[in-house]
Amino acid sequence: MEKIHSLSGMLDLISHKTQKEDIANRIFHTEEILRNIFEGYSFSEIRTPALESSSLFKRSVGDTSDIVNKELYSFFDKNEKSITLRPEGTASVIRSVVQKKIENEKHKLWYLGPMWRYERPQKGRYRQFYQAGIEILGYPEGLAELEIVSIICSINKALGLENTVIKINHLGNNETKQNYCEALKEFLVPLSSKLDDKDLERLNKNPLRILDSKNADTQEILKDGPKIIDYLSDSALDTLNIIKDTFSDDCDIEIDPNLVRGLDYYTGFVFEAVSSSLGAQDAYIGGGRYDELCKQLGGKDLPAIGMAIGIERLASLAKTYKESKTLISFIILSSNIEPKAYKIAHKLRSLNNSIDIDVQLSDGSLKSKLRRANKDNAAYALILGEDEFKSKNIIIKSLLDVDSEQVTMSFKDIDSFIEKIK
Amino acid sequence: MEKIHSLSGMLDLISHKTQKEDIANRIFHTEEILRNIFEGYSFSEIRTPALESSSLFKRSVGDTSDIVNKELYSFFDKNEKSITLRPEGTASVIRSVVQKKIENEKHKLWYLGPMWRYERPQKGRYRQFYQAGIEILGYPEGLAELEIVSIICSINKALGLENTVIKINHLGNNETKQNYCEALKEFLVPLSSKLDDKDLERLNKNPLRILDSKNADTQEILKDGPKIIDYLSDSALDTLNIIKDTFSDDCDIEIDPNLVRGLDYYTGFVFEAVSSSLGAQDAYIGGGRYDELCKQLGGKDLPAIGMAIGIERLASLAKTYKESKTLISFIILSSNIEPKAYKIAHKLRSLNNSIDIDVQLSDGSLKSKLRRANKDNAAYALILGEDEFKSKNIIIKSLLDVDSEQVTMSFKDIDSFIEKIK
Repeated sequence: MEKIHSLSGMLDLISHKTQKEDIANRIFHTEEILRNIFEGYSFSEIRTPALESSSLFKRSVGDTSDIVNKELYSFFDKNEKSITLRPEGTASVIRSVVQKKIENEKHKLWYLGPMWRYERPQKGRYRQFYQAGIEILGYPEGLAELEIVSIICSINKALGLENTVIKINHLGNNETKQNYCEALKEFLVPLSSKLDDKDLERLNKNPLRILDSKNADTQEILKDGPKIIDYLSDSALDTLNIIKDTFSDDCDIEIDPNLVRGLDYYTGFVFEAVSSSLGAQDAYIGGGRYDELCKQLGGKDLPAIGMAIGIERLASLAKTYKESKTLISFIILSSNIEPKAYKIAHKLRSLNNSIDIDVQLSDGSLKSKLRRANKDNAAYALILGEDEFKSKNIIIKSLLDVDSEQVTMSFKDIDSFIEKIK
Repeated sequence: MEKIHSLSGMLDLISHKTQKEDIANRIFHTEEILRNIFEGYSFSEIRTPALESSSLFKRSVGDTSDIVNKELYSFFDKNEKSITLRPEGTASVIRSVVQKKIENEKHKLWYLGPMWRYERPQKGRYRQFYQAGIEILGYPEGLAELEIVSIICSINKALGLENTVIKINHLGNNETKQNYCEALKEFLVPLSSKLDDKDLERLNKNPLRILDSKNADTQEILKDGPKIIDYLSDSALDTLNIIKDTFSDDCDIEIDPNLVRGLDYYTGFVFEAVSSSLGAQDAYIGGGRYDELCKQLGGKDLPAIGMAIGIERLASLAKTYKESKTLISFIILSSNIEPKAYKIAHKLRSLNNSIDIDVQLSDGSLKSKLRRANKDNAAYALILGEDEFKSKNIIIKSLLDVDSEQVTMSFKDIDSFIEKIK
């Protein structure tokens, strides 16, 4: 019969206990670390649906962003309504807060889950990918900015990252943005014959995003252009310098006047965490302040700052791996005693939540089962044959210490042995 | 500006630290318990994409199931290919194992994630919902059945469930199924004028599923009909009795000869965990053996058994709640020292991973900040003003013990105090 394949650009992740450096294990470990960090900063989990009205992303992420221009995974549902699989997390979080009418409260929220885009699949870019993020809602510029950078430093440390830099910049307030955009236009319009079509479109729709251009010629031209840093207020410059000074002994932090981020909704402080180990697309975390988005989505004024984390990229950089619990391989030697022996394993599990008990479910010789236990890095094998069962004993063999002899223990002694394992 | 709403039948889950009985907190707690149990039984996580070719579910879940008949969330993508948001987890897991050509290995896998269906939204039934599940692949009938029931007992216990019953049945092998279906047809065809359209269709396509009928008249008729239990081999009956005997002191287990499950792919042992607290739709776990599915999906022969868990239903039954870590509320009294004070909190976090430190990010009086700390159930408030900062001290106030006085500690003593909190 014909096989059915997964869709193009959509990965299956299967973890293997003994292959800690596999991408699946890296991703699951990274997610666990992130969850613990978010909870340790007293953030609360928010989970929005995978599907939203397409209008949500058109209105929030912005018309000139690559995401909306060509990458949205959209379709018509059975009622001919345009639906989109979310390409990012922030728009849905704000939509949810506006819908629940809780913009007047303060929130520290985190999310983690799959996102989608419909671009051509290529190496390291998938149509279903994973992002985590946080949103700090209700707090104006100040401590919230410090909290964001503190979390980035904690992530870098917990995953043992190397060769990372946190790039920070400030887009000012609306007035700054407007003044700077005018200066940028004034500078670029006479040079527009040298710009490619994409950058020309940006120049017309949202000139700020030209700073993000991947075209080397454009970047060369921009070197002589106006810098946003010259248009910033003293307090915006202070913000950048305070952030840099506060964390400079924890992380490498650089002020990068060209950093604007790929989404239209940012204002004020923006940042990216990059790693030279990632190649050309070097950012694994990005974000910034977006005080206008809530109003754009029909809500009230809501100061807000957040960041998104590319799980696949972050996982590829991780230098720490999941710590396994102590594994006990439970070996039953005779099919005659299987149910009663299984019941013993079932009871042992209830004695200690911090160990794994793997009952070997297949037939096979003691030798092959011990081989399997060793391959799985089990700390101990518990071996139960008919004779042991009759005399209410279990054989225990330490697998980590090759010189240790196997020992026969009574059911009762095994109980207290299991209870004591850490 | 007009608000954008979430799609019909799609919930936002936002957890609130102090409202443990909220549905969001219940769901997140239930998921954490399930993950720990699966890992404690030495299962490995598998994560398949949300989207699959529609043909996958048509071929696996079965033409007569309600899921495929009317509930699939399907659409055409930009290439006019029919795509479906997965309605359940098993078909994708087997598709993945076949695609990776690892059917000859043994696997113990778990998954957890959102699923979708396009039925009319109604109370307690959502278009996006959450399921967890396990699949035990490569093991014929025997210990794998015991492991499944052992896991159900562990789930019931860890979540403190009450009023639950595990219903078990056996559908026999293909020969049993065929013989029984013939007897059932022979019995029902003369009575077919009394059956409704849905049951008539089942009678023609897959008579076994009539046992599942929600029509009370049909159920009345079936009382006099043939029972599958009379067609089972001795070994199948033994399986049921052994399972019942093994776990009957842990859980209520009943043999239910009418249990057939709603999907076409089951063979052999089938089961449901039900709770009388759930009303008419009383199953929160269901599953069974499905030895034929892998071949149906173009793979090799693969003995398999698994179960799926309805997270929303299970969460609604849970009587245990998430245990919070010790919470420290960090209060900065002067905006002049904010960055330096934040840095102290940043450092304290690195000293102890098992506590939450919540830096209060907003302006406000000491009184309002202490009120907030109390509301959040913080164990301690750390209070830092300009005077304390100059003299390198922090005020610490125990919030759980109302009689305790606040104490002033040096930065150094605070470090060791934080390190010692469990």
